Amino acid sequence: MKSRRNEIPLRTIERLILYRRILRNLERGGVVSVYSHELADRADNTASQVRRDLMLIGYSGVSKRGYLVERLVSEISKVLDDGDKRNIALVGIGNLGRALLAYFNSRQPHFPVVAAFDSDDSKVNRVIGGCRCHHVREFEGKARELDIRLGIITVPAPNAQQVAERMVAAGVEGILNFAPAPLRLPDGVIEDRLDITLALEKLAFRTKNMERVS
Amino acid sequence: MKSRRNEIPLRTIERLILYRRILRNLERGGVVSVYSHELADRADNTASQVRRDLMLIGYSGVSKRGYLVERLVSEISKVLDDGDKRNIALVGIGNLGRALLAYFNSRQPHFPVVAAFDSDDSKVNRVIGGCRCHHVREFEGKARELDIRLGIITVPAPNAQQVAERMVAAGVEGILNFAPAPLRLPDGVIEDRLDITLALEKLAFRTKNMERVS
Repeated sequence: MKSRRNEIPLRTIERLILYRRILRNLERGGVVSVYSHELADRADNTASQVRRDLMLIGYSGVSKRGYLVERLVSEISKVLDDGDKRNIALVGIGNLGRALLAYFNSRQPHFPVVAAFDSDDSKVNRVIGGCRCHHVREFEGKARELDIRLGIITVPAPNAQQVAERMVAAGVEGILNFAPAPLRLPDGVIEDRLDITLALEKLAFRTKNMERVS
Repeated sequence: MKSRRNEIPLRTIERLILYRRILRNLERGGVVSVYSHELADRADNTASQVRRDLMLIGYSGVSKRGYLVERLVSEISKVLDDGDKRNIALVGIGNLGRALLAYFNSRQPHFPVVAAFDSDDSKVNRVIGGCRCHHVREFEGKARELDIRLGIITVPAPNAQQVAERMVAAGVEGILNFAPAPLRLPDGVIEDRLDITLALEKLAFRTKNMERVS
């Protein structure tokens, strides 16, 4: 598998994550098989793209009625490799932080947010969205105790870099950053930024310049 | 300007949005000029990329002390064209919807969320995050009355497509979609998806396969 995974671009990984999510929904609805064009339609994609992606991961279980949903879920999961859960910590228990805690802990059993942190003493020791809150100065100890590997940053922009450095020092390997400020991270630590304001500004720009943007 | 904007790729637009945000922060802090490497450092970028981007928009105001902050903000703003505000509506007043209402209406005066919608009668007529809530069946009327051009979707995945179609029927030109489901939209309506779960899954995958992902 290793050599095959070597060749999978990140865009394909994104699509595989989406396919699996769609397939799991179909499975829950009792659907046994699905055609590439049906999967493509639900993924806002083309049938040929779906077929290329599944060929790339070496999937070949096509029947007369299309792909077998259960088998395809299991094949994609082998590639995405999620047997290995990654514990997550969130820092910054404001409005967005609370919303994310509620969201992840109710609906995303594969991505357990096991601890939340804030610098506000009034939040310490409370349980928010099913998650225990600690003071951010306890981050390193808790991260090691709970084997935290991924971090979510929902603090204001001026505090994001400091929080990120704390995470890196505690062994966090990947950071999902909601603060509207890019982080400076050492090699080997991955940042993915979800900059909501930037997304909205970009959307406004694109709708105003529809024909002019490449 | 039109012909010049023609050639600006979306990635550059993203960086320009970020530069302007950084420059405005510097301006508020009383900074008058900034070197390309300082701007690059704050944008997690390189000085040569910054210079290329600013050349692309035709900026030439480099002094001995670097770029003039105020002038650069105004030149970038000419390109981003934001004199023209775009009213925004949000549909789906759950945890995430509330968090976004609080966030945008307190900190983002350029992106006014002027109305929020939900199918839950208990939320109708309340004011959440400074924003009046309506029943989603009133969307079309309110959208025309308030000149709504952009929509934010924070409903659960199974309801997202229906909400999007309502938005499109009401003249919305761009949709920021937080529901973990791609939308099928007519040409000329732009979707940008912020799929938080997908981002986290992708991050988990990348940290586990650091050397294997291209």
